[in-house]
Amino acid sequence: MKIVIIGGVAGGASAAARARRLDEHAEIVVLERGEHPSFANCGMPYYVGGEILSRDKLLVAPIEMLRSRHRLDVRVNAEVSKIDRETKAVHVHDRNSGSGYVEHYDKLIIATGAAPFRPPIPGIDHKLILGLRDLNDADRMHQLATSGARHAVIVGAGFIGIEVAENLRKRGIDVTIVELASQILPPWDAEMITPIDQELRGQGIQIRLNESATEFRDRDDGLAIQLKSGETLDADFVVLSVGVRPENGLAIDSGLECGPRGGINVDEHMQTNDPDIYAVGDVVQVEDFVSGAMVQVPLAGPANRQGRIAADHIFGRQTAYRGTQGTAIVGAFGKAAAMTGQSEKQLKAASVDFEKVYIHPSDHAGYYPGASPMTLKLLFHPESGAILGAQGVGSNGVDKRIDVIATAIQGNMSVEELEESELCYAPQFGHAKDPVNMLGFVASGVLRGDHPVTHVDRIPAEVQTSSDMFLLDVRSEAEFENGAIPGAINIPIETLRDRLGEVPQDKTIVTYCQVGMRGYLATRVLMQNGFDVRNISGGYKAWLLFHPQP
Amino acid sequence: MKIVIIGGVAGGASAAARARRLDEHAEIVVLERGEHPSFANCGMPYYVGGEILSRDKLLVAPIEMLRSRHRLDVRVNAEVSKIDRETKAVHVHDRNSGSGYVEHYDKLIIATGAAPFRPPIPGIDHKLILGLRDLNDADRMHQLATSGARHAVIVGAGFIGIEVAENLRKRGIDVTIVELASQILPPWDAEMITPIDQELRGQGIQIRLNESATEFRDRDDGLAIQLKSGETLDADFVVLSVGVRPENGLAIDSGLECGPRGGINVDEHMQTNDPDIYAVGDVVQVEDFVSGAMVQVPLAGPANRQGRIAADHIFGRQTAYRGTQGTAIVGAFGKAAAMTGQSEKQLKAASVDFEKVYIHPSDHAGYYPGASPMTLKLLFHPESGAILGAQGVGSNGVDKRIDVIATAIQGNMSVEELEESELCYAPQFGHAKDPVNMLGFVASGVLRGDHPVTHVDRIPAEVQTSSDMFLLDVRSEAEFENGAIPGAINIPIETLRDRLGEVPQDKTIVTYCQVGMRGYLATRVLMQNGFDVRNISGGYKAWLLFHPQP
Repeated sequence: MKIVIIGGVAGGASAAARARRLDEHAEIVVLERGEHPSFANCGMPYYVGGEILSRDKLLVAPIEMLRSRHRLDVRVNAEVSKIDRETKAVHVHDRNSGSGYVEHYDKLIIATGAAPFRPPIPGIDHKLILGLRDLNDADRMHQLATSGARHAVIVGAGFIGIEVAENLRKRGIDVTIVELASQILPPWDAEMITPIDQELRGQGIQIRLNESATEFRDRDDGLAIQLKSGETLDADFVVLSVGVRPENGLAIDSGLECGPRGGINVDEHMQTNDPDIYAVGDVVQVEDFVSGAMVQVPLAGPANRQGRIAADHIFGRQTAYRGTQGTAIVGAFGKAAAMTGQSEKQLKAASVDFEKVYIHPSDHAGYYPGASPMTLKLLFHPESGAILGAQGVGSNGVDKRIDVIATAIQGNMSVEELEESELCYAPQFGHAKDPVNMLGFVASGVLRGDHPVTHVDRIPAEVQTSSDMFLLDVRSEAEFENGAIPGAINIPIETLRDRLGEVPQDKTIVTYCQVGMRGYLATRVLMQNGFDVRNISGGYKAWLLFHPQP
Repeated sequence: MKIVIIGGVAGGASAAARARRLDEHAEIVVLERGEHPSFANCGMPYYVGGEILSRDKLLVAPIEMLRSRHRLDVRVNAEVSKIDRETKAVHVHDRNSGSGYVEHYDKLIIATGAAPFRPPIPGIDHKLILGLRDLNDADRMHQLATSGARHAVIVGAGFIGIEVAENLRKRGIDVTIVELASQILPPWDAEMITPIDQELRGQGIQIRLNESATEFRDRDDGLAIQLKSGETLDADFVVLSVGVRPENGLAIDSGLECGPRGGINVDEHMQTNDPDIYAVGDVVQVEDFVSGAMVQVPLAGPANRQGRIAADHIFGRQTAYRGTQGTAIVGAFGKAAAMTGQSEKQLKAASVDFEKVYIHPSDHAGYYPGASPMTLKLLFHPESGAILGAQGVGSNGVDKRIDVIATAIQGNMSVEELEESELCYAPQFGHAKDPVNMLGFVASGVLRGDHPVTHVDRIPAEVQTSSDMFLLDVRSEAEFENGAIPGAINIPIETLRDRLGEVPQDKTIVTYCQVGMRGYLATRVLMQNGFDVRNISGGYKAWLLFHPQP
């Protein structure tokens, strides 16, 4: 058996190592175009920013180890120019020697990844416009960031854009982010990244939303970036991070089927339409585990697992990829945003029925020092209670809760099962009623009809103009005076039962408190007294996420 | 509807609040024997130690809030002396006034908790022997710990014993722990708490295992503790934490059925054999979710959920308790040990077939600063792959992995599904192959027969005396010389393929490396070359857990 693997980073390296473990005698050739196989691409922004001091740390599986420990025939600077399916061979260009040769395969694995998208804008090929794909890119950005650069513009506010922004800022560089969408971190729902947006701005990063670059021009030692709005930004260099595109050229040229957005079509065993050719990682399209839609999700975890699965299938094992959930996390300045499953915007776009709840717990018991707040959002089916997705934002413990919910989604659990999850509790680690349980309580209450909710984005901005709605703030007077939703009337929960006469019986009552709990109590009180009532899930804190205060 | 609840802490307080939300008009009477309902009992050790500075922080739901917000008739210093099932009434002793009265109920909830066990040892009633059950206990211990006490002896090394030990040590007190068992933290398997044991000793805490107190005597201003071994310890005070016993006196006296270890018998709705009486929390016995055995698990999370379930059922809802998994965590000096499901010793005691694997990952990518090591152990069924339990020990991120596995157990997932779990990854939060995935990979490899394992506790202590076993260390020469399992021969994995002639073909090869990965590779190499081989799961690090170096 001779296996040739094109690409030696996450998916390719995993496939190679797995293949060796499954067959000690197979010939395994890894053709890596760059200088390093299996480097830590997710660490590159932190090397640029100085959090990771030594570049060597990024070389997680040095080539010598792959050769001596796994007996892999790893070749770097080895660029494949053509796949010849007839003769089952690839044409390789040795970038060191400049010579070419042909390598035959029994099975081929394409792990070419995805390349930063370069939109067709005048000046896009300027030498001070950087991507961040391989170590050469990281070296270049590191060099610029540590040699007196004072201004950088980042085009695109996705994962890499935000991580690079943080790290350049930590180098003392003035950073401006330009993002086409109306929010940073577009995979998240907009309100859920408000705290990240505010943190970035608080750290002095400029953010221009609904904005795009229309031209890059030489200017002094740097560039001028012309924006659609008419404004011009100056920068010593530009980082382009407007998403990636599958590197599918070899696949297309050899007649392999690709999806509408370019990802190679594979089955659950990562097999292409040519049974001798597999594809894994950022270059493929996969099924979304929750929605069933075909998606392209450039994440390291799925790439690694797909590599294993392709190798398994080559050796006759029926391991199958279960689809991608889109579990992801991004950190910046000590804050983190995480998500799993579908976002609200995805559900809306697909016209899927859903309900949602928000909670604002602390990461551990409030009476133990160091508790920090987070916001969690749970999306679920309004009849079955199936968990459709979750998002979280905060400082500590967000990753844990999203990981637990990701596991619940994998296990096809319902929101009612989250009520019963039994998680680690001691006051420095969590709560006797963990935030995951709280999400279960709140969502199940909604599901059962005990707790009718509405949402900030479903009530009119100016409630007092609505003749059929009564907006009731049940917080304390002090909290109310400190800031409230426009149009609200304040009746603290403690006095509500004695002041029911002040609540109109002919209107829909929309109640809220600070985080949702007292609003829920008020909802129970009012429901049982015959009122038509719903609680704003997440309360005033949710309002502030939708209406950030400058 | 009139509901009377005996006990106003975790389970009782949860039941009361839930009942109010379900019925705005019910009469709900909470009879709390102590001075405070709903206090943070899990926080008490940290108040003693000064981590929690203000005692007020422990009053999580002040009595005024329970009254005004939930309209609960909360009575403190109200001790129930008798349950009269005939007349559906309880006899209450008001400890303030000294007077007594009778309170009738439609439904009664017993949430009396569990009391620290006081073994019948001479001198056990000495006034300087403290438990830690309520705020009075905490006040007393706090006072002693902050008024010049220099020596404390802790009898019992369970959760509370270890937490109190840490906190007294932080007060500068010399602490000696006396534990009857051969290990601290008996719910865990012994090897998994080696790092906690070592940390405690490193912090200057004395630990006496296989030891017990046989007598307490007055001595100067403190006590002398006579030990079984003959030794005598001096202490300014003693903390007794040798477990708890259900406070079942009221239940037994009124003819409610209890289990063999005293926990009140309840069904899945927390209903006792009297349909008008429910019981929740530490006073009941519950079914173990994994084993199906009846157990008594004094944990706050289950108590809270049981309180909700009892209230639900009183109002006609069929919410059911799914059993307790025993998910738990304990922290000390920045280290944490966590567990969920069955321990190895429980499985052995119940003669359940199981296999186990150990891994030693870091909490996040090793190339990102601050990664800290942990050890995880996964217990699973050797044929079905069903997850039976998991334990973890380390500094950071142990709680997250155990919570994920607890959720997988709840969802009846197998070890093969852990391979496919999709968890948050960025280098500061985890790994592209998360430790949970790694557990899945390793356990699934064992399950499929790709990866035969053995364990430190299954190989002879002196392997060289075994004529039919060859112990092969595949680490580097430097690692080997730095410490190895006695009797091992060193052939580094990188040279193994060229030195197969040195490996005997007529013996069982037991191989190992530092953490298990290279040993797995060696196992694959040797299997495919016709050897009978198994890998020591967890490698030399697992050896060190079983054979701690002083």
